[in-house]
Amino acid sequence: MTRGRSGLDALLDPASIAVVGASDDPDKIGGRLLRRLVEYGFAGKVLAINPTREVVQGLPALRDADQLPDGVDLAVVVTAAAAAPAAVAACARRGVRACAVLSSGFGELGAEGERVQRAMVATARAHGMRLLGPNCQGVANLASGAVTSFSSSFVNVTLRDGPLAVVSQSGAVAGMVAALAHGHTGVRFWVATGNEADVTVAELVDGVLDDPGVRVVAAYCEHVTDAPRVAAAADKARRLGKAVLMVKAGATEAGARAAVSHTGALAQPDAVVAAFLRAHGVVRARSLGELSELARLFAGAAPVRGNRVAIVSNSGGLGVMMADAAVAAGLALAELDETTRAGLGAVLPAFAATTNPVDLTGQIVQQPHLLSAVLPVLAADPGVDVVLVALGIVGPTYPVDTIAEDVAAVATEAAGRGVLVTAASVGGRPELAERLTARGVPTFADDAVCVRAVARFAEHCAQRHRPRPSTAPTGDVPLPEAPGGDGFLSEHAGKALMSAWGLPVVAGRLVTDPAAAAAVATATGCDPPLVVKLCSPAALHKTELGAVRLGLGDAAAVERAAAEVLAAGRRAGVEPIEGVLVEAMVAGGVEVAVGGIWDPVFGATVLVGSGGVQVETLRDFQLLVPPLDRADVVAAVRALAVHPLLSGARGAEPLDMDALVELVLRFSGWFAATGGALPEVDLNPVFVLREGVVVADALVRTRETRKGA
Amino acid sequence: MTRGRSGLDALLDPASIAVVGASDDPDKIGGRLLRRLVEYGFAGKVLAINPTREVVQGLPALRDADQLPDGVDLAVVVTAAAAAPAAVAACARRGVRACAVLSSGFGELGAEGERVQRAMVATARAHGMRLLGPNCQGVANLASGAVTSFSSSFVNVTLRDGPLAVVSQSGAVAGMVAALAHGHTGVRFWVATGNEADVTVAELVDGVLDDPGVRVVAAYCEHVTDAPRVAAAADKARRLGKAVLMVKAGATEAGARAAVSHTGALAQPDAVVAAFLRAHGVVRARSLGELSELARLFAGAAPVRGNRVAIVSNSGGLGVMMADAAVAAGLALAELDETTRAGLGAVLPAFAATTNPVDLTGQIVQQPHLLSAVLPVLAADPGVDVVLVALGIVGPTYPVDTIAEDVAAVATEAAGRGVLVTAASVGGRPELAERLTARGVPTFADDAVCVRAVARFAEHCAQRHRPRPSTAPTGDVPLPEAPGGDGFLSEHAGKALMSAWGLPVVAGRLVTDPAAAAAVATATGCDPPLVVKLCSPAALHKTELGAVRLGLGDAAAVERAAAEVLAAGRRAGVEPIEGVLVEAMVAGGVEVAVGGIWDPVFGATVLVGSGGVQVETLRDFQLLVPPLDRADVVAAVRALAVHPLLSGARGAEPLDMDALVELVLRFSGWFAATGGALPEVDLNPVFVLREGVVVADALVRTRETRKGA
Repeated sequence: MTRGRSGLDALLDPASIAVVGASDDPDKIGGRLLRRLVEYGFAGKVLAINPTREVVQGLPALRDADQLPDGVDLAVVVTAAAAAPAAVAACARRGVRACAVLSSGFGELGAEGERVQRAMVATARAHGMRLLGPNCQGVANLASGAVTSFSSSFVNVTLRDGPLAVVSQSGAVAGMVAALAHGHTGVRFWVATGNEADVTVAELVDGVLDDPGVRVVAAYCEHVTDAPRVAAAADKARRLGKAVLMVKAGATEAGARAAVSHTGALAQPDAVVAAFLRAHGVVRARSLGELSELARLFAGAAPVRGNRVAIVSNSGGLGVMMADAAVAAGLALAELDETTRAGLGAVLPAFAATTNPVDLTGQIVQQPHLLSAVLPVLAADPGVDVVLVALGIVGPTYPVDTIAEDVAAVATEAAGRGVLVTAASVGGRPELAERLTARGVPTFADDAVCVRAVARFAEHCAQRHRPRPSTAPTGDVPLPEAPGGDGFLSEHAGKALMSAWGLPVVAGRLVTDPAAAAAVATATGCDPPLVVKLCSPAALHKTELGAVRLGLGDAAAVERAAAEVLAAGRRAGVEPIEGVLVEAMVAGGVEVAVGGIWDPVFGATVLVGSGGVQVETLRDFQLLVPPLDRADVVAAVRALAVHPLLSGARGAEPLDMDALVELVLRFSGWFAATGGALPEVDLNPVFVLREGVVVADALVRTRETRKGA
Repeated sequence: MTRGRSGLDALLDPASIAVVGASDDPDKIGGRLLRRLVEYGFAGKVLAINPTREVVQGLPALRDADQLPDGVDLAVVVTAAAAAPAAVAACARRGVRACAVLSSGFGELGAEGERVQRAMVATARAHGMRLLGPNCQGVANLASGAVTSFSSSFVNVTLRDGPLAVVSQSGAVAGMVAALAHGHTGVRFWVATGNEADVTVAELVDGVLDDPGVRVVAAYCEHVTDAPRVAAAADKARRLGKAVLMVKAGATEAGARAAVSHTGALAQPDAVVAAFLRAHGVVRARSLGELSELARLFAGAAPVRGNRVAIVSNSGGLGVMMADAAVAAGLALAELDETTRAGLGAVLPAFAATTNPVDLTGQIVQQPHLLSAVLPVLAADPGVDVVLVALGIVGPTYPVDTIAEDVAAVATEAAGRGVLVTAASVGGRPELAERLTARGVPTFADDAVCVRAVARFAEHCAQRHRPRPSTAPTGDVPLPEAPGGDGFLSEHAGKALMSAWGLPVVAGRLVTDPAAAAAVATATGCDPPLVVKLCSPAALHKTELGAVRLGLGDAAAVERAAAEVLAAGRRAGVEPIEGVLVEAMVAGGVEVAVGGIWDPVFGATVLVGSGGVQVETLRDFQLLVPPLDRADVVAAVRALAVHPLLSGARGAEPLDMDALVELVLRFSGWFAATGGALPEVDLNPVFVLREGVVVADALVRTRETRKGA
């Protein structure tokens, strides 16, 4: 029993396929599969296993999986649930490389099914066999015709091979995505993972990217189980110049509840999911419609060099609407240069403007080649990265073939220079869109959809070309000396830790009695006004406790305040009390919050937002997933509602945003290096000043330290 | 020459049509029109006018328009531009009721064309004839077959009659909208207004609503010229239970620039356009795709009683995605009641959850009637207002006819109770969507699009059922005593005006010298701290001038401050100086801004937003168009980012939002009543306190008073 190829390779591109539960009845699942293999022209070896018949659909049948020859790549199990574990075990014993269990009746039914499912996986793993499913709709490779799925999407139309891979937990969703892609983009792989007892969506996304024929992966999942693998796959895609598109369902609380009831998986905080996917360049779609629209463009377009759009339309109104939509989607309207305007002036009617968007005017009816004359002029403008060909209603006299040929010729030439030519055919004759698509010009039936897809693509290309961040700090991460299990550090200990991470922390001292507090106030380097706060790992809401005194002008006030906050702490039963913090009071500047949350699946997540109470009330924050570079942090800070107050609004002097960015970078580097030892760190407020930033409060949650885990 | 019917009625539903410039060549515009009338079965009288032929397409031709008989409803002029004015004049003389000038070469070419165009309109008006165009693609009535447009949208497919009216400045856009509607919704009227020398989009929207067969108007314009008429039409639609959908292009600055270059019209501030349309219940679409999707639902659905959605799907994943999309779009997921859950439990497989969204599971393959069993149960739940039938990929064995019939039957029954049943068929067999549509169930091919359209429809129905606001103040609006032409009132005069409008203004007095200021400080009712400000209609930016002093504790400080701000004013050359305002300093609360802008087209527009410098920097504001009711203002305040600070965040005591709402209502009532005498009023800051609100600054711009204009 030799196993040459990896199980995943065998699953995705099998040379031999056994159907366990093969049926002579083409309406039964075990019959459908054999028929699909014939219809889709699979040229490899097919083995049918049926305990009661000698011949199934013309193939000699084996009695059971124990009779399989050595080295079968893929066995597909479609028996009743009760018979599946034995079939899986036999396949494993016979050295089958991968087994797809299409049978249902396992984990999705409850604890007992879950147990059986786990046992099947254990058997498979013991023999080095990979297992897809159970309760899944199977896998297909359209290049070889290895279609071992019972999905109707292979029947309603004949799917063709192409640059798209569809990887989905849900078979129904995989079917919908493939169906929506049909007519626009061919499909290389189609996989549904079902219960994901072994093989996951993440692993398959990674796997299909290795096929040189795949340009885009469209993935669907309701729960991300293996974030590092998703990240690795996304990084591979970036290296290879490919794209991963994903619908992660359960984005709202209601949706997440529904997903939980549907799959039994835990809800995942959507803001974290979004930050994680964005950090790794995974393009998120919010609906199947959007997924298919993006797939169409990403599969059909060469990388584009920028986001400056020129629009040419046979309807002035359509041009205006697409200009609106382009700006709203974050694209820039290209400023046409003098050469371009002169070129347009030479071919357009005298009364037509030579500005962007270009209106071909009613003249197009008399001169259908006007478009072909204008297009190369626009595509040659060095300030134009994308040319949107917006065709409204076109009459029966329009030479759609010629137009499609002309557009495709310009598109091909322009693609070589990083310029994208794409089309919207709105309400026009369907054959125009078909001919454009057939010639490789991604074409949309909706004006706004076209523009939004282009915006996402341009954004993706820009991100793809950015170097990967490399700002992680070096050396061992400083961690609390006595973490003391699950709990919180006192403010003093938290600030000491942040100091050790190299963050600027407000000047101050910890003392144990009011007299010592007064002494701090008279020491040099501690100019009034001062602040006095109770210091205890148990005092999380000091303001509410009455354990904070601000604006203290002299030693006497400090001494009095220290006595008061200690008394307030004792009154409230705070235990242990470490003492009193006497600190300089920060004046001026703007309060922000910087924090870290360690997500059980996604790991380090860093927050930057409005500070003070506002982080909770205004919900003005951005999440980032390390590793980060300067541009990531700058973009996040710019996206805050509070940003104008930082950048110097109404003529005020701008604050030190560089220092804030530096603080976030340093913090996120160390926080990521903790490996989860600190579930949560909350620096709030951090004052952004005219020069520098300073951390004025730090709340650090701990659990048992697992250094560098 | 009697004129029985109005010109607009004659234009929209002509009994007799003359084609001036009729051609025997069906490829020429004058030939196409005659052919369209035959193809679309127009049964009224058709008159062909051709100076050189006796017979045109089988019709005896008149030599010129002077030969027209009395009482022709509609003349369509398709001659060269040079011949059009004479033709229009002849039609006017012959008592033609409406004239559509399809010829181009007028205002769109420049000043000379504009002059000729104006002269044509003058001639028409002198004879009581209405004029559509020039430079337009004509008008069509699909009920009578009166198709007098050369648009290809009548040729590419045969448009059928139905409840949609398409009214558009752009003929190309009208064609696209009709083409996108085809297959979903029939079209009663199709009108393109072109240069709008006389008849406008607004007037036509108003006009087509009178036809009992019209349920929805889809309008497109690049410039709103006649806001009162749009408002009147929208109000008519509301009364009649109909809807007006509109794309107003030029929404972004870039789009607006493009629209300006395309139509020569001025850019309109989009936030004002949006507030105006929202105030009048006009449903705004952002693209032609969206317009057509909304038209499909609004034309096919009876009013719905609420926004609580139940989702039933043959794909759990699709159900989750639509639940996500529903919540994101502002719909609520219905909580199914006990009866419903028991009813679902009785028909669903044992392992299926009976929660919303309802997953029919793989069982649907064995039991295609499962959907028919589940649907009436969901539609009968008193907590369900909308049932979304989400059908993913459906196999060849699905009985699409039966499913469509079953869904349609439930939809019809539910519609009578204000419950909407609609469907998304995502990647499924096209015939399923077709059959559902044919049976009157609005059906979408995109999951997110379906949900968004439903959300807009539910919102529209809710607004339609709200009584019209009636909070306008009675009596003459107080206006500045000496408006003094274009300029500003001093802060004192502005506050006095706001007091006269019944708004609470901060306590204070205007004095002319420092000694008098000191006297105010010692008077009763003026407890320190106090504020001193320079008062002048010319001092708009007092803080920047150094002409404001805050937190003055006693009479001496007030006297000193008064001297200083007067000196600062004189130094800066401020002229005239009215004196010094001595006021109580408002403590606590949250600063908001309330303001009014008089738009030249849309009239009174009221702003409420974050106050202080934040209104400019944070851009946290909402615009409202009077008349307003309490619910409008409450919704606007709730939509502000600053709202959590008003409503009592983090356990703080909530502030007096009722008083803020009352202030906005009162302000907007009076501001609307000024009729434009005050181009701008800016109350900033207005302090919202625990009890009450108080206006702390008022900037009032004036122009020559036109009382009650």
